[in-house]
Amino acid sequence: MPSSASEGRRNMSSTPTNSEADAGSKTPGLINVPGDSHAKETPLSDLDTWTTPTERFYVRSHFPELPTLALATYRLEITGAVDRPFTIGYDELLTMPSVEIVVTMECAGNSRSYVTPPAEGLSFKHGAVGTAKWKGVPLPALLSRAGLRDTTKEVLFEGADIGDEEEEGQTVRLGYARSLPVADATSEETIAAYEMNGEPIRPVHGYPVRLIAPRWYGMASVKWLTRIEALEQPYTGFFQRRRYVLINEGEAPQDSWEPLSTLRVKSLITHPRHGEVVRVGQYTVRGAAWSGDGEVVKVEASVNGGRDWQEVSLVGPSSPTAWRRWEHSWSIDKPGHYILMAKATDSVGNTQPASIPWNFRGYGNNGIHTIAVEVSQD
Amino acid sequence: MPSSASEGRRNMSSTPTNSEADAGSKTPGLINVPGDSHAKETPLSDLDTWTTPTERFYVRSHFPELPTLALATYRLEITGAVDRPFTIGYDELLTMPSVEIVVTMECAGNSRSYVTPPAEGLSFKHGAVGTAKWKGVPLPALLSRAGLRDTTKEVLFEGADIGDEEEEGQTVRLGYARSLPVADATSEETIAAYEMNGEPIRPVHGYPVRLIAPRWYGMASVKWLTRIEALEQPYTGFFQRRRYVLINEGEAPQDSWEPLSTLRVKSLITHPRHGEVVRVGQYTVRGAAWSGDGEVVKVEASVNGGRDWQEVSLVGPSSPTAWRRWEHSWSIDKPGHYILMAKATDSVGNTQPASIPWNFRGYGNNGIHTIAVEVSQD
Repeated sequence: MPSSASEGRRNMSSTPTNSEADAGSKTPGLINVPGDSHAKETPLSDLDTWTTPTERFYVRSHFPELPTLALATYRLEITGAVDRPFTIGYDELLTMPSVEIVVTMECAGNSRSYVTPPAEGLSFKHGAVGTAKWKGVPLPALLSRAGLRDTTKEVLFEGADIGDEEEEGQTVRLGYARSLPVADATSEETIAAYEMNGEPIRPVHGYPVRLIAPRWYGMASVKWLTRIEALEQPYTGFFQRRRYVLINEGEAPQDSWEPLSTLRVKSLITHPRHGEVVRVGQYTVRGAAWSGDGEVVKVEASVNGGRDWQEVSLVGPSSPTAWRRWEHSWSIDKPGHYILMAKATDSVGNTQPASIPWNFRGYGNNGIHTIAVEVSQD
Repeated sequence: MPSSASEGRRNMSSTPTNSEADAGSKTPGLINVPGDSHAKETPLSDLDTWTTPTERFYVRSHFPELPTLALATYRLEITGAVDRPFTIGYDELLTMPSVEIVVTMECAGNSRSYVTPPAEGLSFKHGAVGTAKWKGVPLPALLSRAGLRDTTKEVLFEGADIGDEEEEGQTVRLGYARSLPVADATSEETIAAYEMNGEPIRPVHGYPVRLIAPRWYGMASVKWLTRIEALEQPYTGFFQRRRYVLINEGEAPQDSWEPLSTLRVKSLITHPRHGEVVRVGQYTVRGAAWSGDGEVVKVEASVNGGRDWQEVSLVGPSSPTAWRRWEHSWSIDKPGHYILMAKATDSVGNTQPASIPWNFRGYGNNGIHTIAVEVSQD
C-alpha cells in the first residue's frame, strides 16, 4: 500500500518560485493582481479572440509556492476504487489516444472586485477567464484501464502543490485536491492534459500534466496532477468543503456550505473598454458569453444603462465547452457618456442577475457586466 | 485696478510639497489614497466621535501642489460688487468678532470606490468625511464691511492653489475658485476660518485662512482663501461648470451639467468594521448620519442584508451643520456571516438609495452603506 496521498506529496519537490526577483514581475499583456506574486489577469480588450494566447492567459494557483516537476521522474497514480491501480509516466501518457478540446476556464474569484460589500480574497477584476485548446488523454481511457468499480461516487484529483492553510485557528499543511462527481470524471470532455495551445503546458499552468474539467470553475482543473483516486464516498477535504464554497449571509458555520461547481452563465464586453473614448458613428461592440450548464442561446446588450435591450449576434465557432463570441452594431448619434451592459441566457434558462447575493469569498460573480464609455463628436 | 484674479494668484508663492520624500508618506491613523501623495482618508472605525481629531481628518486638495502662505504677507481681498473693497491681513482678521461652529465636511468623491461601473477619480472608500470645530469670522461681517450690493447673485471664493487642468485638449493653468449663492455666502454659518479644532489650521487644511461652507460638499470650503468677489452674474469658471459637476449617462457635453452643492443624506456604520469578527451576544452598532438639506430625523439599521429594518437611537450632540451619532443594540444569537446596513432620512424627506445612478466622476455617492461581519461562537 502506498502511504497516504498527502504524505506522498510531501516528499515531492516543491521549490518556491515566488522569490523576490519574481515577486510582482510583470508579464507583458497581463495585469498583476495585488497580494499574490503569481496571480495575473488579462485586460478585457485582450480577450477578443476565440482562443486566448497562452502568454495572455490568466494565472491563478492556490498556494504561493509552485511545484517544479521533472519529466523523467513524473508519475501519475490512478488508484482507489479500481481493480488494477497503476502509475503512468509522462512518455507513456503521450502514447495513449489523445483528444484536443477548446475550453473556457474561469477563476471562481473572477469579478470579485465588484462584489458588494467587499469580499475576502484577491481583487480580481473581470479578466480571470480565458479560452485555450488543451490536448491530453480522456479520463475514461485512464479510469477504464484501471478498472473503475461501479461503486465509485466521485473521483479525487490531487496536485503536487502544497501549502499552509488556517483551519479552526490552526495552521495545517495541505496538498491541493478536488473531486468531481463520477459522471463528470468519466466524461470524454475531461482530460489529463499535457499541451495548452499547441505546446507543453507552461509551469504556472500545471506542467507537465493538468486535469481539464470543462464547464467547471477553474479550481476543479487541478494543476500538476499526480494522483487520481476513485472514491466510494463523497470527498470532504479542505478544498471541497472549506474553500471554493459559497459562504452566504445568515448561514451558521456548522451548516454545509455549497461547493462551487459549474460556471454560472456570464457575458463580458471586450470592446469598447470601460472608460474608452469612441467617436460618434458606427461602433461594433464585442464580447464573449459562456455557461457551464448549457449552451449560450441569447446575449442582449444595452447602450443606455439597461433601459432598453437588443439581442446581439452570436458569431464565430461554437462549442459546448467554450465561450461564444458576440457582436452588436451600435449606432451612436450624439456625444456624451454611455452605460453599456451585456446579459447572457443559456439553454437551460439561466440568466444573469444585476448583482449576485454577497458571499464571504466573493465567488461566482456573474452580475451583469456594466461599463461606461465616452463618446466624442469626432 | 488690480490685475485679474488669476494673474494675481500666479505671482504668489506656490511651493511643490509632493517631493519624493513626501510622496505617499504615511500619517498615523490615516489611509493613503493611491494616485495623490497628499490625499488621505480616515478608517471608519476612527470616525467614532462627534468631532474628528485633526490628525485623523481626511485630506484632499484639488491640485498636487499645495501653496505655502506666510502670515506676515497674507492678505484677504474682498472685492467685486461692493461699495468699499478692502483687503485685510491675518492679524486684523483675528481682531474681528468670531464664532465657532462644528461642521461635517465630506469630499464630493467620498465612497467613489463603490460606484458602478467604476468612476473617474481617486479611489476613496468611505473615509473622506469628518467633523471639526472651526473658528473664524462670519462672512456677513466681512461682506457688510465691504458694502455688499444687493445686486449680488453669487460670491466667488478663490484659493491660492494653482495647477494644470485639461480642457478641450489644452492644458491650462488655473487657480482654484468656487462660488456660493449669495444666500449661502451671507449666512452666519459661513465663515472665514483660521482655527480648526482649537489650533491654527494646518497647512494641508488651508493655512492660514479657509472658507467653511457648512452643508456643502468639501469643494466649496475653499482652502488658502485669498480673495472674495461679489458677482452680479452666476460664476461659470472651470471648477463650477467642468469639475464638481454631475456628468450623467446620456447627457451630451454641451448640456449644462449640474454643479454639486449640498451634502446628500448619508449614514455610515463606524462599528463594527467591515470584515470584523465579533462574538455571539450583545453588540452596539454605531455610526454617524448627516444631510446638507435638513436635520437627520431617522436612521434605520438592518442586520440581515436589508430584509428587516429597525429604527436606531440618535445619540449625542445635535447641530444643523454636523452629523448625528447613532447606536443600535444588536442581539446576536448564532455564529455566521451577517450583512449590516444603515439608512438615514432627513427632515425634508430625502433618504438613501441602494445605489446612486452612475456619474462620470462618481460624485455624491450616498448609496446605503453595507458591510459584512463574521460572528464567532466565543
